[in-house]
Amino acid sequence: MGKLMRRLSTQDQNFKQVFAELLAFETVNDLNLVQTVDQIIADVRQHGDDHVLKLTQQFDRHPAHQFSDLELSQQQLKTAFDNLSPEIRDALELAAKRIRSFHEAQKQESWTYIDDLGNTLGQKVTPLDRVGIYVPGGLASYPSSVLMNAVPAHVAGVPEIIMVVPAPNGELNPLVLAAAYLAGVSRVFTIGGAQAVAALAYGTQTIPPVDKITGPGNRFVAAAKRAVFGQVGIDMIAGPSEILVYAEGENNADWLAMDVLSQAEHDTVAQAIFITPDEALLNAVELAIEKHLNELPKADIARTSIENRGALVLVKDRAEAIDLINQVAPEHLELCLDDAEAMSEDIRHAGAIFMGRYTPEAIGDYCAGPNHVLPTSGTARFSSPLGVYDFQKRSSLIMCSKDGVKSLAKTADILAVQENLDAHARSARYRYQ
Amino acid sequence: MGKLMRRLSTQDQNFKQVFAELLAFETVNDLNLVQTVDQIIADVRQHGDDHVLKLTQQFDRHPAHQFSDLELSQQQLKTAFDNLSPEIRDALELAAKRIRSFHEAQKQESWTYIDDLGNTLGQKVTPLDRVGIYVPGGLASYPSSVLMNAVPAHVAGVPEIIMVVPAPNGELNPLVLAAAYLAGVSRVFTIGGAQAVAALAYGTQTIPPVDKITGPGNRFVAAAKRAVFGQVGIDMIAGPSEILVYAEGENNADWLAMDVLSQAEHDTVAQAIFITPDEALLNAVELAIEKHLNELPKADIARTSIENRGALVLVKDRAEAIDLINQVAPEHLELCLDDAEAMSEDIRHAGAIFMGRYTPEAIGDYCAGPNHVLPTSGTARFSSPLGVYDFQKRSSLIMCSKDGVKSLAKTADILAVQENLDAHARSARYRYQ
Repeated sequence: MGKLMRRLSTQDQNFKQVFAELLAFETVNDLNLVQTVDQIIADVRQHGDDHVLKLTQQFDRHPAHQFSDLELSQQQLKTAFDNLSPEIRDALELAAKRIRSFHEAQKQESWTYIDDLGNTLGQKVTPLDRVGIYVPGGLASYPSSVLMNAVPAHVAGVPEIIMVVPAPNGELNPLVLAAAYLAGVSRVFTIGGAQAVAALAYGTQTIPPVDKITGPGNRFVAAAKRAVFGQVGIDMIAGPSEILVYAEGENNADWLAMDVLSQAEHDTVAQAIFITPDEALLNAVELAIEKHLNELPKADIARTSIENRGALVLVKDRAEAIDLINQVAPEHLELCLDDAEAMSEDIRHAGAIFMGRYTPEAIGDYCAGPNHVLPTSGTARFSSPLGVYDFQKRSSLIMCSKDGVKSLAKTADILAVQENLDAHARSARYRYQ
Repeated sequence: MGKLMRRLSTQDQNFKQVFAELLAFETVNDLNLVQTVDQIIADVRQHGDDHVLKLTQQFDRHPAHQFSDLELSQQQLKTAFDNLSPEIRDALELAAKRIRSFHEAQKQESWTYIDDLGNTLGQKVTPLDRVGIYVPGGLASYPSSVLMNAVPAHVAGVPEIIMVVPAPNGELNPLVLAAAYLAGVSRVFTIGGAQAVAALAYGTQTIPPVDKITGPGNRFVAAAKRAVFGQVGIDMIAGPSEILVYAEGENNADWLAMDVLSQAEHDTVAQAIFITPDEALLNAVELAIEKHLNELPKADIARTSIENRGALVLVKDRAEAIDLINQVAPEHLELCLDDAEAMSEDIRHAGAIFMGRYTPEAIGDYCAGPNHVLPTSGTARFSSPLGVYDFQKRSSLIMCSKDGVKSLAKTADILAVQENLDAHARSARYRYQ
C-alpha cells in the first residue's frame, strides 16, 4: 500500500520546523463574510421576527408561513423522546444521566469570610438568567451536542434555555429533539445561521434576548458569534477537531488505528497525530490505519484529513513525547500505556486526557460524563472544556464595619491621591475621619 | 444652582424608555481602526523587535536606541519600590497583601472521583504558562491596576508574568514599577499600543509569546486584543466605568454624593446613577453633588459624565429598585441601608456589591481585596470580576477500567451509529466486544 500518513521522527534534521508547520492552522478573516453577517445582524435588529422568518424560508427552504411555525412545543419534544426505540432511548438516558452527574461536581457555590478587621468579603455565584444553545442542522446535527451544551446550563440553574436548530426543508432529526427534552431545554426554534445568533443576542418580538450563546456552527454562525461577543457572552469559536494518541508497551494496533480514524472522519481538516517511541508499533498502526480506512463510510473525509494534517511521529522516549504534547495542547489526548495516570501528571495542556487502553476518545464524545466541547487549535493552553462554570458568574461582596473600614479607607485615600483621583480619596476619607 | 443631573421617577409615563436609553452605550466598530491595527499586527509578526522598536520611537517618542533599551531589570523595579516614601510603601504593601489574601480563596484545585462502574473521572486544574499584563502609560497609569492584574496571575501559579507599559518620552510612573515588584511580575517591557499586544500574542525575537493578555487600554489596545483573541485568551474588553448607588434610611448626603462623583471623575462617558425611594434624600444628594463637583480637580470630566450619562432616580420602593439594578447589572453597586446583606440576596447581576454605609466603592478600587477589574456595560449578566480562575484552566480526566468501560462503550456505539460516525462506533465497539 502507499504511504498515506506523514511519518516524522524527532531525529529528523528539520523536525521542529516540519512539526510546527503541521500544527499551523489559521482561519482567515474573510471581510466579505464579516460584512454579510453584520448586515444580517443589523436587519434582524431592525425587523425582528419578519426578517428571521424571511431568511429561514430563503436559506433553509423552510415551509413556515408565519414566525410561530418556527417554534416547537414541549409536547413535540416529548413525543420525539417517547417514539425512540428502547435501545436508543436507554443509550440517550444513560448519556444524559452521566453527563449530569459529572457536571454537578463542577457547580460552584458562593462563599464569604470575615477578615482580621471585621469586614465581610466574598464571592456570590449566580446562574445566568437565559442562554441560547446553537445546534447545527442537517448532516452535522448531533444529539450528543444538545446534551453537552444544555445539561451544564441546566445544572448551573439557568432558568431559561433556548435552543435554535435549523431545519432544512422543514426536516429535523427526532433524536435532537429527544435530547432537548432530556436536557431540560425550555424553548426550541427551528432557525439557524447568523440570523439565529442575531435573534438570540438582541431578541425579536418572539425570541427573548439571551445572555450567552454556546454551541458549534458553520462559518456564518462563527462570524456572527464573534460579532455579538460583548453584547452577550459566547463560548470559544471552535476550530477543527483533533486527537493526539500516545502509546507505548503492549497495544492493539487496530484499536489505536480506529481511535486515530475516529477524529479523521469528522472533517477533512481534522488533525490526528500518533506518537510512540516504539517503531514496530508505529509500523503496525500505520498498516492498520491503511487497512481500516477503506472500510469506513466516511473514508474520503478521513483520507483527506490524515493525508493533509495527520502524522505518525517516532520519539526517542516518553519525555520527548510529553514536550510535544504540551506544544500541541491537543483537544483530545489518549495515553495508551500502563502508567497513564503518572504520565498525565506531566501534561500541562490538553482539553481532555483519556488514560489507559480502555478509554477510547469516542466514549468521551457521548457518555463518559465530561463535556465533549473542548478547546481546539492549541487553545487548551488558556481555555477549558465547556462546563457549568460557563453558565455561572460571580459578583464580589464587600461589607466593611465602622471600625473595620478605617485602615482600608486611609490606604485607599493615600493611593487615590497618587493616582490623581480626588473624589475617590475624599469618598474614602469621609469614612475614617 | 442649575439642574446638573437628569432626574427620573419610575412614575414618569415614559420612564422605561428613558431609562433604557440612558443605559444604551454601544461602541461603534470602526473599520479604519480595525485595518490600522491588523496592519500593525501583521508587521510585528513579520519584523518582530525591529518593528516594535520603530513604532515605540514613533508613537511614544521613546528615546530607546535598541530593543534591549525597552526592557527593565528586576533591579529597577526593586529600586522603585525601595525609594517609595514609607507612607506610600505601607499603603501599597497593605493593598497587595489584602488582594493576595482574597484571591487565594478563589484558587481552584483538581479533583477526581470513581464512578459506580469503577471508572475514574475528574478535572485537572493547571495555571497558564505565561501571561501578558497590559498597563496603560501616561495619565491613566494606575499602580492599582498592576496589582489587580498581576496578583491573581501570581496566585494562580503562572510561572511567567510579562508586563508591558508604554513610557511616553521614556517617562514612567515609579509607583507602577514598585507595584510590579510587589505583585511578582517576571519581566517588564516599556512598550504599548497595538504593537505591544501583537508582540505578546505572537512573540518577537526578545518577547516570548504569552497565552493570555489582560488589562485595560485605549481603543488601539482594545481593537488589538479583539484581533488576537483565539491566538491567545483575553479578558473582557472594558467599557466606561459605572456606579449605581442605592440608599434608604439614615444617610449622609455628602458621602453618597462623593461616591457618585468618584465614578464620574474617571471618564466623561462614565455612568453614575443614584436610586432611592426617599425624595428628601434625593434632593439632598442632588444638592451635595452640585456643591462638591466644583471642588474637584477633575470637575470638567465629572460634570460631563453626570450631565450626559448620570441620573437621580426616585423609586416607589425597594422592590422597584431591585428590578432596576438587575436591569442595569452595574459594574459597581453600593447598597447604603441597614439591611444591605438581605437586599443583596435579590441582586442577580452586579460586578461588585458594596454593602452598608462604611463601604465606599473607592476602597474596592485599591485595597478591600476583591478585584477592581469588573464587568461593565451590563456584561455582569454573564461575566465575572477578573480572578485567579482567569489564569487557571481545566483538563478533563477519564480513565475507564476493562470492565467499567463495557456499558459506556456499548452506549457510545449505539449513539455514534445514530450520528453516522462509524469509526467512533467501531473504536468504542473494540472495547466491549
